[in-house]
Amino acid sequence: MKKKIKKINAAILIIGNEILSGRTQDKNILFISNWLNVNCGISVNEVRIIPDNERIIIENILLLSKKFKYVFTTGGIGPTHDDITAQSISKAFKVKYEFHKEAFGILERYYGKKKFNDGRKKMAKMPRGAKLIYNPSSAAPGFITKNVFSLPGVPSILRSMIDNCKNYLIKGLKVHSKTVNLYTVESNISKKLGLIQKRYKKFVEIGSYPFFRLGKIGVSIVSRSTSLTKLKSVNNAIIKLARQKNIEILKI
Amino acid sequence: MKKKIKKINAAILIIGNEILSGRTQDKNILFISNWLNVNCGISVNEVRIIPDNERIIIENILLLSKKFKYVFTTGGIGPTHDDITAQSISKAFKVKYEFHKEAFGILERYYGKKKFNDGRKKMAKMPRGAKLIYNPSSAAPGFITKNVFSLPGVPSILRSMIDNCKNYLIKGLKVHSKTVNLYTVESNISKKLGLIQKRYKKFVEIGSYPFFRLGKIGVSIVSRSTSLTKLKSVNNAIIKLARQKNIEILKI
Repeated sequence: MKKKIKKINAAILIIGNEILSGRTQDKNILFISNWLNVNCGISVNEVRIIPDNERIIIENILLLSKKFKYVFTTGGIGPTHDDITAQSISKAFKVKYEFHKEAFGILERYYGKKKFNDGRKKMAKMPRGAKLIYNPSSAAPGFITKNVFSLPGVPSILRSMIDNCKNYLIKGLKVHSKTVNLYTVESNISKKLGLIQKRYKKFVEIGSYPFFRLGKIGVSIVSRSTSLTKLKSVNNAIIKLARQKNIEILKI
Repeated sequence: MKKKIKKINAAILIIGNEILSGRTQDKNILFISNWLNVNCGISVNEVRIIPDNERIIIENILLLSKKFKYVFTTGGIGPTHDDITAQSISKAFKVKYEFHKEAFGILERYYGKKKFNDGRKKMAKMPRGAKLIYNPSSAAPGFITKNVFSLPGVPSILRSMIDNCKNYLIKGLKVHSKTVNLYTVESNISKKLGLIQKRYKKFVEIGSYPFFRLGKIGVSIVSRSTSLTKLKSVNNAIIKLARQKNIEILKI
């Protein structure tokens, strides 16, 4: 097996007025980000949420596809007038927006010739040369254009499809994480925790997140690293710090 | 009363590795976006989620504060080493990062002189000239630097504070919305709906969102506009379309 090489990054581009306007709670960011890390060792470094606007989609596709190894878009690939992801990506990369033969066939078989109306046909139109991301739950495929992976916005459909992206992705180093939950306030440990972070700056990223549970205040200390050894060292240092300060460590 | 003038936009900048990595589900985007629209008539036009990285925060603050009337940041204003929003904004705007006298006083009174340790003092450090956003739930204030409003990441604390932003915001035209829920599939109405959108292009934005309820497939048609009259016309057109096609309209 070839040695896994390095950190690989990605961006997520959420296309949809419904998320921006506060109508709909996004559920795809968390899912995609986790999936990419666990399955492919790919870290999401930036997320953007933008409206269904051609000019803005084009701008962001060009910028993000240059800046990151992969871009995942969600939304805008259905049959209605506000679904403009495919045509916008075509324009961004200056390729023809046209019927994808295989996608057309899949959809025609799925709906039957009689019920294969214009709206449904639209879902077979893609940037020329796109590769398909098969959709086991509702047929209409996603597609890959250069390094841009376009998925639907409906979370259940997206989840049914995402495994089909795997073969097209170069795997990177998985980021492992360890969490220590302490019954204390952040400011009680912030100084020493800062010193631990400083010592492991190159290898481990330590985050501190307050929580409230059963009326008590606590802090989750989350350490993340591609090195399990370094992660263990940091974890031990945090537990030692907690013991020194007589802080209760919460077992979950 | 002065006449409300025009559309006013904003961007949200979520600062935090925990959201990017898929550890934590963001709940602030939806809340801020709704709050801004309902209370101030301000529309969120772009959201970005970025890591706790000084260079990246600076870059985004400069870009978004230029591009949008207001920017709302969440996260990174606590006492730990990974809370670097205030110092990054200071650098972005080239102003001193220093103790804010009033914030220092508020926090000192809240914690008491003895318990006012370095971590807690850090929460009083802000860009010079910042205005405070008072925090009724846990004292540590947010702050306003030029057109950038910095709020905490913990949703319950953010929610307790956001009303205190109101006086610093110029009010715009509220975007109203109407939803018609139809028991049909998108492709059945996509063509005619596209025509309605075309007719009202300048005034109303129509979105189409599939849903599943009690084993049935449906579509929510959401129309949004600053004009209630135009909104009503579009709504009537959609209901007419549904009746023509014998589509059941779902009452909620």
